[in-house]
Amino acid sequence: MSLWEDKVRRVVPYTPGEQPADTGIIKLNTNENPYPPAPGVLAARDAMDVERLRLYPDPAAGELVKALAGRYDVAPEQVFVGVGSDDVLSVAFLTFFNSDRPVIFPDITYSFYPVWANVYRIPYKMAPLDADFRIRPEDYYEENGGVIFPNPNAPTSCYEPLDVVEDILQHNPDVIVIVDEAYIDFGGTSALKLLERYENLLVVQTFSKSRSMAGLRIGYAIGAPKLIKAMNDGKYSLNSDTMNMPSQLMGVCAVRDEAYFKQCVNRIIATRERTKAQLLALGFVFPEPMANFIFARHPRFQGRELFEALRAAHIYVRHFDQPRIGDYLRITIGTDEQMDVLMDFLKNYINSH
Amino acid sequence: MSLWEDKVRRVVPYTPGEQPADTGIIKLNTNENPYPPAPGVLAARDAMDVERLRLYPDPAAGELVKALAGRYDVAPEQVFVGVGSDDVLSVAFLTFFNSDRPVIFPDITYSFYPVWANVYRIPYKMAPLDADFRIRPEDYYEENGGVIFPNPNAPTSCYEPLDVVEDILQHNPDVIVIVDEAYIDFGGTSALKLLERYENLLVVQTFSKSRSMAGLRIGYAIGAPKLIKAMNDGKYSLNSDTMNMPSQLMGVCAVRDEAYFKQCVNRIIATRERTKAQLLALGFVFPEPMANFIFARHPRFQGRELFEALRAAHIYVRHFDQPRIGDYLRITIGTDEQMDVLMDFLKNYINSH
Repeated sequence: MSLWEDKVRRVVPYTPGEQPADTGIIKLNTNENPYPPAPGVLAARDAMDVERLRLYPDPAAGELVKALAGRYDVAPEQVFVGVGSDDVLSVAFLTFFNSDRPVIFPDITYSFYPVWANVYRIPYKMAPLDADFRIRPEDYYEENGGVIFPNPNAPTSCYEPLDVVEDILQHNPDVIVIVDEAYIDFGGTSALKLLERYENLLVVQTFSKSRSMAGLRIGYAIGAPKLIKAMNDGKYSLNSDTMNMPSQLMGVCAVRDEAYFKQCVNRIIATRERTKAQLLALGFVFPEPMANFIFARHPRFQGRELFEALRAAHIYVRHFDQPRIGDYLRITIGTDEQMDVLMDFLKNYINSH
Repeated sequence: MSLWEDKVRRVVPYTPGEQPADTGIIKLNTNENPYPPAPGVLAARDAMDVERLRLYPDPAAGELVKALAGRYDVAPEQVFVGVGSDDVLSVAFLTFFNSDRPVIFPDITYSFYPVWANVYRIPYKMAPLDADFRIRPEDYYEENGGVIFPNPNAPTSCYEPLDVVEDILQHNPDVIVIVDEAYIDFGGTSALKLLERYENLLVVQTFSKSRSMAGLRIGYAIGAPKLIKAMNDGKYSLNSDTMNMPSQLMGVCAVRDEAYFKQCVNRIIATRERTKAQLLALGFVFPEPMANFIFARHPRFQGRELFEALRAAHIYVRHFDQPRIGDYLRITIGTDEQMDVLMDFLKNYINSH
């Protein structure tokens, strides 16, 4: 081994869900939206002046920031945008979690949190979810270097009502509390309501789920102007031009079509409720799902067995080979038709094994 | 001040060149290409299936990697792609510069290098360019934690021939040497030729200059498969899906049109040679320019004075208020017509002051 190899940073990379090229599969493994983006996005594509690609994009993504500020009724100075909510969260970790005390997040949660903490050398502590996969607010009362949790949580789909979020905020006035709301639009109430009272609250959302635009990579954070300024300073020090022109143009059009957004979200919720009833009838158990996925196990089958049987039938769901959740499948809500194929397979499989 | 404010990371952010919304100005301040992207990029826009934006992009950007590997005659395992070369360089700093010894780079160079080093807590040392703004290879002989320099350098436009690059590589077998070739296509010879002999060499290039696609944010690195794997592991641990679908699709089309690429670059070189002669005739002095910009000063005028006079006339160039280079202007090569407007103004200004 050469000497330079000693100094190469070794990391255990995050393993994303598979993105198979085969379009014949039913893809319920990465929580994508089964419906296309708002119709205005196609119009934005056609209106995009390709000649202008020769110029740098607006580093502040001003039009997109303005559109989001309008949609969420906050000032543009309260909105930070990034290349997917992963980019937003990564900048937030780097900007706000600078204490010697550990940052606290749940033990079962978005698997990028410990990865970022390790990369940025941030001490952290994982608070165990209770037996029902719920957050115990008292775990977040001790002195810490910051708090982050998704609401609804992933991959559990569990939602904590606002009074739990507020309880955690009340006990943490001296650190930044990040609520990662990638899935909030599927039935929960956003912590944005609490912003007026807690200037140490940062709410992070994404275009990848409810807005059907995972392929564009747009995420955003909303918080007090002081927090957003600190994040922008941090972002500009890493890479001043991250969001490209197509994302800025198409993102604005997606934000502006509120009617389509609501219709899309409501369809997914309706399919989720229908799927819940069918899974229950087959004997599955799961925490009450409040996202665009259901986290379910069947008492008679191991998670890996069902995952592999489904995969062989070209139905992709997500399975996590981890303590406490190894028997669960995370099943994204697709169209009614896709869920029918899934349920037919599960019904046959369960009845014949 | 609240307690949480103590722990917010303070950084001095990079100051990008202005991106004025006013299209009436002559914009020679951020080294953009005056010509549009390859015609195939427009076709790629029209062929882009907007419905697929609901899906995550290919995290490996496989098609773009393949296109670049083909263009540069290397294996796909030797190509890393990122959201602009800033993203690529930032990942490279994080991945390769993990030593307690200082990384060495020139004192006058791309201003992001010290910024990334500070953010990632990497010790560094700046080696002074000589009086002609040239790199002194012997400054890079001492023990260090890595080496990075642009070739041609920015903002000086000075190019070091390959034997200088190779000399630095020969003296640094135990660390990673990064050659940042954002401007190499405008007349220099790429260090890619040295890859076969130096597995610790990483060459970084971009679509923002010679390929007219600053608005898309695409950069790439080429090196030994081991280096590229380490960078990908690092990238996936920060953000697994950074390059969006439009960039991947349009980037491939830009790489494939070699004839347009050469034509575009040759036009810019021709305009540069014409502009050089005109600037010399007006009494400007400058190091031999090998990029798509000229770094010039006039013995009778202060840099700031000329910068401000040009700005008042709606001609934007770049001025750096820094030791040794405060009297220089960095003038991007635009179209012949744009340069004519610039030269007319300078001629009048110089003759009347």
